[in-house]
Amino acid sequence: MNETQARLYIVGIGPGGRDGMTLAAVQALKGSDCIVGYHVYTELVQGDYPDKEYYTTPMKKEVDRCRQALALADQGKTVSLVCSGDAGVYGMSGLVYQLQEEYPRVHIQVVAGVTAALAGAAVLGAPLIHDFALISLSDLLTPWEKIEKRLLLAAEADFVIVLYNPSSKKRHDYLQKACDLILRHQSPDTVCGLVEQIGREGERSKVLTLKQLRDEQVNMFTTVFIGNSQTRVIEGRMVTPRGYEL
Amino acid sequence: MNETQARLYIVGIGPGGRDGMTLAAVQALKGSDCIVGYHVYTELVQGDYPDKEYYTTPMKKEVDRCRQALALADQGKTVSLVCSGDAGVYGMSGLVYQLQEEYPRVHIQVVAGVTAALAGAAVLGAPLIHDFALISLSDLLTPWEKIEKRLLLAAEADFVIVLYNPSSKKRHDYLQKACDLILRHQSPDTVCGLVEQIGREGERSKVLTLKQLRDEQVNMFTTVFIGNSQTRVIEGRMVTPRGYEL
Repeated sequence: MNETQARLYIVGIGPGGRDGMTLAAVQALKGSDCIVGYHVYTELVQGDYPDKEYYTTPMKKEVDRCRQALALADQGKTVSLVCSGDAGVYGMSGLVYQLQEEYPRVHIQVVAGVTAALAGAAVLGAPLIHDFALISLSDLLTPWEKIEKRLLLAAEADFVIVLYNPSSKKRHDYLQKACDLILRHQSPDTVCGLVEQIGREGERSKVLTLKQLRDEQVNMFTTVFIGNSQTRVIEGRMVTPRGYEL
Repeated sequence: MNETQARLYIVGIGPGGRDGMTLAAVQALKGSDCIVGYHVYTELVQGDYPDKEYYTTPMKKEVDRCRQALALADQGKTVSLVCSGDAGVYGMSGLVYQLQEEYPRVHIQVVAGVTAALAGAAVLGAPLIHDFALISLSDLLTPWEKIEKRLLLAAEADFVIVLYNPSSKKRHDYLQKACDLILRHQSPDTVCGLVEQIGREGERSKVLTLKQLRDEQVNMFTTVFIGNSQTRVIEGRMVTPRGYEL
């Protein structure tokens, strides 16, 4: 078999609908024989590319999903493994590289996408114009003590902070705990924002204070933004100025 | 005049060539009468959209550029203000919102794009799979003491750190200074990476240690990645694992 046939694209399809996809992502999907992914994401692209072979795996079966994509590519298929947002931000690309030694012939190419932090920022205004830190509150794969330390130090450093996975059924009070840690360094009036279902039906966004955010109901589809000491509200938008003289 | 005519898109066109652009960005450009931006970015899109009115401003004239875009929209034109990468990450969207009160009729819409951190990560492997902090080393608009504090605390928090604007003619030793600060908390063997001219002709990338990075020559087109304590090299790629059991 020709080695160049063993090709796996790891494709970030953006946060919501197809409009958030890059042209490079479209080309990768078009050029693939098989599309592999969590069913929610394969269903998003299936309408546009009905003639591909689709392989779906349930949630929490990430290792199986990546192995399946590598195995299909190893058989000579051109494969796209699709991820929401960017495949390189809490996505599948790390895991694929970790498994690569089992399939040394497969050529891997990551196709970058728009992660929820960027798409959510565009909805809220311009919260990420200056230095920021991105933190996942999920402690499935990370000890909570490490998350706690990062929250405290990021707040002390006056980063704008973006939170992924701010809540789930088992972790209903994690956002509250995170806000309490950040409140040790930032004012209760700090400008914050949240966006739900970015780019999808039911998209909802809100600008509020850190004190209000602490008691807000969020879910696993919410992306949370906590401003720095400079962030302010302009005409209802969350904006972090960069210091230009006007 | 119909208020809906006064529309300004702030469009992130991705890091390099047109393939990094989203479909939403393409639609915004197609639907615009005027395209405004720094000449390097307007020239990138001019070939695909030759029939638009183009307005370019030199570097460091960001305030003029944003005012011009707002003024054109206020005259009833549909305008795209183009930025490299994502308009919301060290881009023009913050400034436009700050100037918005001068042009209250203009409806502003930010179209998110792939910022250099994401595109560079895709080139290097999977360095951003876990929590990360993004820091610009430019002290044109930010006091160096604040940058220094953020570097130190981000390293202490064991974030993967991405550096934008790591060097310029006047700031040739800033990357060295940043590495020295990070070395107070991270090992000299920490896995690092750099990418130059992402998605453009002459793209170059390199994986190296923090100790080596300290003495590396970089320029204003380089994006620098400093791993966390878990980041490692797999088949020449920079990979930060997330903790899945394989």
